[in-house]
Formats: sequence, C-alpha cells, structure tokens
Amino acid sequence: MMCCFPAIFYTCTMQTRLPVDLPKSYRLLNHGPTVLVSSAHGDRRNIMAAAWSMPLDFSPPKICVVIDRNTLTRELIDASGEFALNIPSRNQAQVTLAVGTKSGRETDKFAELGLSTFAAEKVAAPLLDGCVGWLECRVLQEPHIQQTYDLFIGEIIAAWADPRAFKDGHWQFEEGSPRSIHYVAGGNFFETGPAFEVKALN
Amino acid sequence: MMCCFPAIFYTCTMQTRLPVDLPKSYRLLNHGPTVLVSSAHGDRRNIMAAAWSMPLDFSPPKICVVIDRNTLTRELIDASGEFALNIPSRNQAQVTLAVGTKSGRETDKFAELGLSTFAAEKVAAPLLDGCVGWLECRVLQEPHIQQTYDLFIGEIIAAWADPRAFKDGHWQFEEGSPRSIHYVAGGNFFETGPAFEVKALN
Repeated sequence: MMCCFPAIFYTCTMQTRLPVDLPKSYRLLNHGPTVLVSSAHGDRRNIMAAAWSMPLDFSPPKICVVIDRNTLTRELIDASGEFALNIPSRNQAQVTLAVGTKSGRETDKFAELGLSTFAAEKVAAPLLDGCVGWLECRVLQEPHIQQTYDLFIGEIIAAWADPRAFKDGHWQFEEGSPRSIHYVAGGNFFETGPAFEVKALN
Repeated sequence: MMCCFPAIFYTCTMQTRLPVDLPKSYRLLNHGPTVLVSSAHGDRRNIMAAAWSMPLDFSPPKICVVIDRNTLTRELIDASGEFALNIPSRNQAQVTLAVGTKSGRETDKFAELGLSTFAAEKVAAPLLDGCVGWLECRVLQEPHIQQTYDLFIGEIIAAWADPRAFKDGHWQFEEGSPRSIHYVAGGNFFETGPAFEVKALN
C-alpha cells in the first residue's frame, strides 16, 4: 500500500481495509449505491461520480457502468483497460458532487479537492480514502455497446471494504458506522436507510 | 385502465398514478432501487424481482436490466420484446422476496400471491398495484449481450408514479409516504433512507 501524497500517510494508515472474497464482491453494489469511478494511464489519473452502475454476474463477478464518451475518465479507461469503483460514504457526498461536476481535463481533482488515495492491488487506478468499499475492475472489451451506449462491462479482480460497514459478506450499517449514498440530482442524495428483514411466504 | 381481477377493482381505483415525463423517467431508477420485472406474451404473464437494473441514457430514456436465461420472464420478454419495471414500496418487500424465489413455470404468481394489477399503456405486461413507480419498456435488441451476459437494454416508452412518493420530477419520500427498497440477500433489505442536500464546493 502506498499513498499518493505524503501528507495523507496518516489517514491511510488509520483506515482499515479488508479484502472481500470475489464471489461476494457483487454485494457491495447490490443495493444500488452511487459510486466514484477512478482511472489512471501513464502519469494521468482521474475520478468521477457515476450513479449508473450495477452488478452483472456472480462468478466471475462482473459489473456494468456507464462512462460518458466526453469524459477524461473514458479516455483513461479506453487507454488502460481498467478502472476502480469507489463507494463513497455519506460524509463524502460533497466530494461526490464535486467530482461529478468538475472535469478532469481542467484540473487534477485529487489535488484540488485534497483527496487522499491508496494504491490498488491489481489496477493502476488510485483508490479513494474514506470510502466504504472498492472494486478493482478490468474492462471486458465489448466495443459495440461501449461505442453505442457508453456502457462498460468490468470483471471484478479485487475488492475491499471498510469492516466497520461491511463484514462477513454483508453490509452492516449499524448506528454510527459509515453508510453509502444514492444520488438523486443537483446536490440531493438519499442515505442508505434502515435494514429490515422479511420472512419468506409459504 | 383495467384490472386483471374483478375483486381488485376497488384497490385499482384508489391508488392515484400520474404519468412521468419521459425525459425525467430515468430518475425513478437513479437511486438504485430494487425492481420487479413484469412481462406477458399471449395468455402467459409473470413477475420476478431484479436487484440488477440501472438507467442507461436520458433521451430517449433507456435502462439496463439483467434477466437470467433460465427464467420464464426471459422467455416472455424474448417472445414479446417488451417488459415493465415496477418499483415496489417497503410494504411490498415480502412480495418482492416471494416473486424473486418462486418460479413462474410452477405457479401463476399473481394468483398465488393475490397480486392485483392494472393495464399498462404501451406494453402487454401487467403493472403491479401498490408500487411507487412503473416504467414501460420495449427491448432494444442487442443479441450478443443478451446471450452472453443476460443483459437487456430497454427504451422507456411510458412511465408512471405514485404522486405521494414522486412529484415535480423528484422522489419526495416524506414522513408517512411510501418508500422504495434496496435488496441485499436472503430476506434482507434496506429502506431508502433520509434525503439530504449538499452545497457545491467552489
């Protein structure tokens, strides 16, 4: 693990991250949280918000995400064939809004917003500190849907979670633990709400 | 509007549904709720749960949804080229679990579970009473991803919402109004939680 900015080393060492078994990694996205897509190629990197992502398969685990053709993120993903999905917590909502409205062509969002990152294990894309989960993905090349719909399919090749929020293969959003968020529009979000269980009908 | 079962006519007339402008219809799915996929062909019909759906485009509005190749729903969608996404409310969680675990090949889920429906405007698939939103979709045929990934792209051709929960183009989950849900696993769900707003950073 390595931090991108020396000043952020303290933060990096304070947040515990545990690997998530790949067969359970789809569960990080199953409830439909908004994600941040990070990417890198050569010495360029970027991060943007994406409300449009979902799991696609269990094994090997796959996800879908929409990556607009006009974004720097698209350029970096097209060049590198990989990306990461970072699942922000409620206290990152302002950052989520900011990286969803600024363009990486005009500014280094990490530097401008003071975002600390840590190195992924399998991809070059940086992972954002303070998130509740991370999915490292390689693009399964499907040129037709990429070009026609901006739709990308990724195989999850590594996954991580903050054990305060996700453990034993499940989200555990208990009182006081960080929670995921769901983007609406403008600066409006929903927090992931209370968990509840229903019994199967006979 | 027509009910499928005479006994349910009372329920049908009591729930107000208002059309949602197509350019805003993606917002019904933007926060990642779990949906119920309804379908029909000839005299056969079915409904199943799907946690894996997302918006794909604004205009014309499109969505993605994963439809397993072994389901009756898949057979009906392949035959009809259309389907509907119904967005269940919290008090339909048990029904969501039930239609996600039973097979339509073995039982008419509508009859067995006592589900009341009303007629869609543009598709033959029935719409489930008591939901908070409905998207009528026609399949944009993409045989490769349908066959390889069970991934379907639908164009939204009509959309509806319960005005207690969605009005002026936005979800309004106020105290006492019905809320959408997010499936986890087993009988576990999250309710859509509190709305909050953040201000843009300068």
